[in-house]
Amino acid sequence: MTTSSTTADGRLAKLGIHLPDPPTPFGAYVPAVQTGTLLFLSGMLATSGHTVKIAGIVGKTLDVKAGREAAHIAALNALALTKKKLGSLNRVTHVVRLGVYVAATPEFTDHAKVADAASELFRDVLGEATVSSRLVIGVASLPLGSPVELEVILEVSQ
Amino acid sequence: MTTSSTTADGRLAKLGIHLPDPPTPFGAYVPAVQTGTLLFLSGMLATSGHTVKIAGIVGKTLDVKAGREAAHIAALNALALTKKKLGSLNRVTHVVRLGVYVAATPEFTDHAKVADAASELFRDVLGEATVSSRLVIGVASLPLGSPVELEVILEVSQ
Amino acid sequence: MTTSSTTADGRLAKLGIHLPDPPTPFGAYVPAVQTGTLLFLSGMLATSGHTVKIAGIVGKTLDVKAGREAAHIAALNALALTKKKLGSLNRVTHVVRLGVYVAATPEFTDHAKVADAASELFRDVLGEATVSSRLVIGVASLPLGSPVELEVILEVSQ
Repeated sequence: MTTSSTTADGRLAKLGIHLPDPPTPFGAYVPAVQTGTLLFLSGMLATSGHTVKIAGIVGKTLDVKAGREAAHIAALNALALTKKKLGSLNRVTHVVRLGVYVAATPEFTDHAKVADAASELFRDVLGEATVSSRLVIGVASLPLGSPVELEVILEVSQ
Repeated sequence: MTTSSTTADGRLAKLGIHLPDPPTPFGAYVPAVQTGTLLFLSGMLATSGHTVKIAGIVGKTLDVKAGREAAHIAALNALALTKKKLGSLNRVTHVVRLGVYVAATPEFTDHAKVADAASELFRDVLGEATVSSRLVIGVASLPLGSPVELEVILEVSQ
Repeated sequence: MTTSSTTADGRLAKLGIHLPDPPTPFGAYVPAVQTGTLLFLSGMLATSGHTVKIAGIVGKTLDVKAGREAAHIAALNALALTKKKLGSLNRVTHVVRLGVYVAATPEFTDHAKVADAASELFRDVLGEATVSSRLVIGVASLPLGSPVELEVILEVSQ
């Protein structure tokens, strides 16, 4: 394994990031589907196995800091799944879409600060050249009470 | 028409599923757009014509069972629209993305059980080999009071 | 510049529509990502610069008319960004997906009327032949308190 900081796998090692076991499905779906050069991941939650590590609603039972931790956990799950699916993170040529769904109150307005925790991890590991378009939405609730769910579409090399 | 259980059209016949009339638009949009090998469907609701068959919020006025019925109705609409658009369901090579939006309370956590009703119908008709990536989100409300809306992106053969 | 009403740039001129400055990112993401012939825009809000022009929840502090104004502003931002990114709106061959997220109460049901304001502007400028598939969702809250956010995926010519 190279630890070159010019590759995603290398940056992961240099940053000392330990990826978790990738999430497995809860139902009749698969973790990811590739069509052409696009890889669609299933929604990534703040889970470890089938258990949420942080639960709650941002702006009610959780603050922005806890929301960011949840976004970071979900983003680590996305990286772990991608690495398992592709063999190497170096095959990610672009994060085409990062959707960040934040379970939030009607009064909450700082969704972008929560989402940044996922965007920043992706940028730090996958590199500036891959940085995504982004959609950030405040929703009523998410599966298992997770405060964050990520939608990820990647462009990958063969 | 073949009733072979090795094709989607065949499985549909064997399961005795009668597809409804496909939904028609409520505004300045079209039911589906194909680009390359990807077919993007408009959001599928628990409707018949322009009327919702089940209305309400899961966790408040509806239970999981009613939510599942709504998801099943929306999934039948998606299959009907796909069959009309492509001529045959056999042309679906993959459900790239199934997004399930569930109108739910902030306290609700069983969104996946609602979503499974759509995933299971797709799997039973379109086949194991086509099974989707999935995104499940709890939202405040949906058009016409539908408890479920489906986002569907299909990979199709020419 | 042509003012032919048979091109998108021409229709824009004929309609006397003045596009705003395109939105710039709030964080570690980019305004748009192109992969193959698909252009994914970041979520478009009812903003001017980094400030919302209309804030609130439709069905609570805003009525449908104000929601439509917000959708129109977000759609203008999407056109401005697209024109900047592609050089000319004439390069849009299809709006593959228009997602309209409306910050709304659990009781609200007229989301489609809000969404139509974005669909109608796109149709009037980009033309009938480009009309989108559509997803309309009522959500708890959106960044900065914007009542509307647009998800836009375009098919573009080289």
